[in-house]
Amino acid sequence: MKTVLLLGAGKSASYLIDYFADLAHKEACHFWIADLSVAHLEPILATKKGIKLIPLDSGNMTQRRDIIQNSDLVISMLPAFMHPEVARDCVDFGKHFFSASYESDAIRALKPEIESKGLFFLNECGLDPGIDHMSAMKIILEAKQKGEEIRSFKSYCGGLLAPQSEDNPWKYKFTWNPRNVVLAGQATSRYMDQGELKLVPYHQLFRRVDEVSFVGLGKFDGYPNRDSLSYRSVYGLENIPTILRGTLRRQGFCRAWDVFVQLGMTDDSYQLSLPEHTTYRQFLNAFLPWDEAKSVEEKLADLIPEFDFPTFEKLQWLGFFESIPLPKTQGSPAQLLQYILEQNWALESEDQDMIVMQHQFEIQTERGIKKITSSLVEIGKNERHTAMAKTVGLPLAIAVDLFLQQKINLRGLHLPVIPELFDPILKQLESFGIRFTETVIES
Amino acid sequence: MKTVLLLGAGKSASYLIDYFADLAHKEACHFWIADLSVAHLEPILATKKGIKLIPLDSGNMTQRRDIIQNSDLVISMLPAFMHPEVARDCVDFGKHFFSASYESDAIRALKPEIESKGLFFLNECGLDPGIDHMSAMKIILEAKQKGEEIRSFKSYCGGLLAPQSEDNPWKYKFTWNPRNVVLAGQATSRYMDQGELKLVPYHQLFRRVDEVSFVGLGKFDGYPNRDSLSYRSVYGLENIPTILRGTLRRQGFCRAWDVFVQLGMTDDSYQLSLPEHTTYRQFLNAFLPWDEAKSVEEKLADLIPEFDFPTFEKLQWLGFFESIPLPKTQGSPAQLLQYILEQNWALESEDQDMIVMQHQFEIQTERGIKKITSSLVEIGKNERHTAMAKTVGLPLAIAVDLFLQQKINLRGLHLPVIPELFDPILKQLESFGIRFTETVIES
Repeated sequence: MKTVLLLGAGKSASYLIDYFADLAHKEACHFWIADLSVAHLEPILATKKGIKLIPLDSGNMTQRRDIIQNSDLVISMLPAFMHPEVARDCVDFGKHFFSASYESDAIRALKPEIESKGLFFLNECGLDPGIDHMSAMKIILEAKQKGEEIRSFKSYCGGLLAPQSEDNPWKYKFTWNPRNVVLAGQATSRYMDQGELKLVPYHQLFRRVDEVSFVGLGKFDGYPNRDSLSYRSVYGLENIPTILRGTLRRQGFCRAWDVFVQLGMTDDSYQLSLPEHTTYRQFLNAFLPWDEAKSVEEKLADLIPEFDFPTFEKLQWLGFFESIPLPKTQGSPAQLLQYILEQNWALESEDQDMIVMQHQFEIQTERGIKKITSSLVEIGKNERHTAMAKTVGLPLAIAVDLFLQQKINLRGLHLPVIPELFDPILKQLESFGIRFTETVIES
Repeated sequence: MKTVLLLGAGKSASYLIDYFADLAHKEACHFWIADLSVAHLEPILATKKGIKLIPLDSGNMTQRRDIIQNSDLVISMLPAFMHPEVARDCVDFGKHFFSASYESDAIRALKPEIESKGLFFLNECGLDPGIDHMSAMKIILEAKQKGEEIRSFKSYCGGLLAPQSEDNPWKYKFTWNPRNVVLAGQATSRYMDQGELKLVPYHQLFRRVDEVSFVGLGKFDGYPNRDSLSYRSVYGLENIPTILRGTLRRQGFCRAWDVFVQLGMTDDSYQLSLPEHTTYRQFLNAFLPWDEAKSVEEKLADLIPEFDFPTFEKLQWLGFFESIPLPKTQGSPAQLLQYILEQNWALESEDQDMIVMQHQFEIQTERGIKKITSSLVEIGKNERHTAMAKTVGLPLAIAVDLFLQQKINLRGLHLPVIPELFDPILKQLESFGIRFTETVIES
């Protein structure tokens, strides 16, 4: 019996933990879970056999290596910056390695050793990256096999709220690291549009939004992600005229978020030390010009040409026009903003999250242009069983399970962009209800 | 006879060199000039006595320290990053130190040693910082002595072209480091306006412009400099309701420059590798959305609400709407833009530069509000004798001369913000024609 070691048992590991807890209980493997805090798992896993909970600070190299050495296979759900170290340990001790994070240069540097030792290293096998790769490559390879030419590929993904939990004007709460949400997009985004290179600086990003629709859910904003160009080589689409990867928010979110960007309130590069009783309204006013007669609201409308009522309502709901004290007055503008948002965008225990993903293809066929729209909507069950945890954890769990069952027999360093990987994983995901809905229009 | 050592003999050292060449010729001191390249000075100084030209790489510590050890007093016109090292040498060997650069933390750390060794260290004694400090402090101290309250202080400075050389639509050429000009303002600017803290992010900076006028020259744009708040303590104006320091450009410059900022073309944080024959027009188009029907010009006008004809003309003059190849296709957007500007904004040998500076005070007196406008306009004579070199070099030269004559008897670490320094220096500057014109309006 093999020992599967999971490093990192945070919020997004719940489905993966349940999956291997079941396998261990059925004596298909041993399952070790190592995390700084494992106590919260004890009641959940109390009835399961074959599981070991290991308190571990993964930054402690000696302890970490000791545990890795005694396992057969490592799944890392640690923060991405830890992966090079863990991958190094796995190479040293000859252990297979699985993660849902991006394949880094540091991990690519291990490729010769991974190969010479006959190990299997799989990265980017979660949601995004992960399910996006697999579902897109399935369509791309099918088209290529038919001799069709992919003219355009746009792919959007968002971690949002289920409609029943969209109970604020932003239709957004933090289902993901708040700091990353506040700082998202702070670099020039690059993509290709109809053969033209397109560069979008941060302060234009939330104005360059595509409308993306999902049946039964309505409209979303899709803004371009940092670097869409690198996906050309990953997907074998080197000469594709249009390629864009984007992030989804509910319609109207981007226009309101852009107010913070335009004001400079998402700036994390300098520290403010505001007087203790500074109000929300004064904080907002610091980013607006002085005026003898105009109100904060009027100055904001002057500064932001697109300032409409839905945008006003979103800022108002956060309290920005109130003369009540800020919850925090020391820190970068981004940190103060994050603190304000955390007061308002915290998930309640009854809230459900939602993952939406959509690929849009334009494919040149012998008969004309075929438009394929492939959409995934996954709604969370409860606080522990979130859509995020399901879509991140299950692809990884299935990949490891298939590997244990020797239904995946690859060795070397891989991404799930080859049929040997994505075909069986996508098939298994369907049995968990994770499936794409495809519409095809030929013209 | 004392030996004055000048480190750095670049473009802005010409007036200072002439000043000490004359003193040395009159046997008032020895004058050593050390620079990587000194050959160009030989013909200019051929008829002068008492001068030594020393080829020196100031980064070579051994050689630099050897020369400093054998001098009595060091004037550094090296790049600012060299000053901590040179100042350290001066402390070690007990030499006085003079510079026109900002007093850095590294230099402040030397203060106890400067004092215990009885040395005189003077920084920020050029133009800006320098003449600005001196002329402002003269007015500030006079008002304070009268018991008046300074309500508002705005100070603007610009290194520009003399009107007779304003022969392009930007009315601008590089009289200063081109890279610094392209990257200018890339941090949030901070100032106080009527008691309110104001924060202006880079992408709003060139839209938050004050109109500043000079008699006989007309109108200029003044945009806020990075950190105006720190000047409150320098000038003893801790509780002043309004303080702003700004940079001057010719009217209309900022609106056109803002196009580059809005597009993201001044971004220095990532590298582009454009196809070899990419044209100016294609480069510009990369920052604009794709559109089936609209021209580059139309898309630009859509993106930039303030896009007027004078702005169009400035971009057109630089070639941005032309289908001719870029001079450089590899580098950050800022580097490519800089290269384009260098082709167009190079100073011709017959061009004259101009320094403009203006302080605007609002002072509460017993009788009401007194508005003082104090302006300096200095026009360059020729390629060597620029207004920049004159206004940077002479304050420093005069300070050193007064020190040699023991008309300045201070010791310790100083800025020229005290009457013992600014009174005699400003007086001497007047004899070189560097004088402020003051208008006072009482209401």
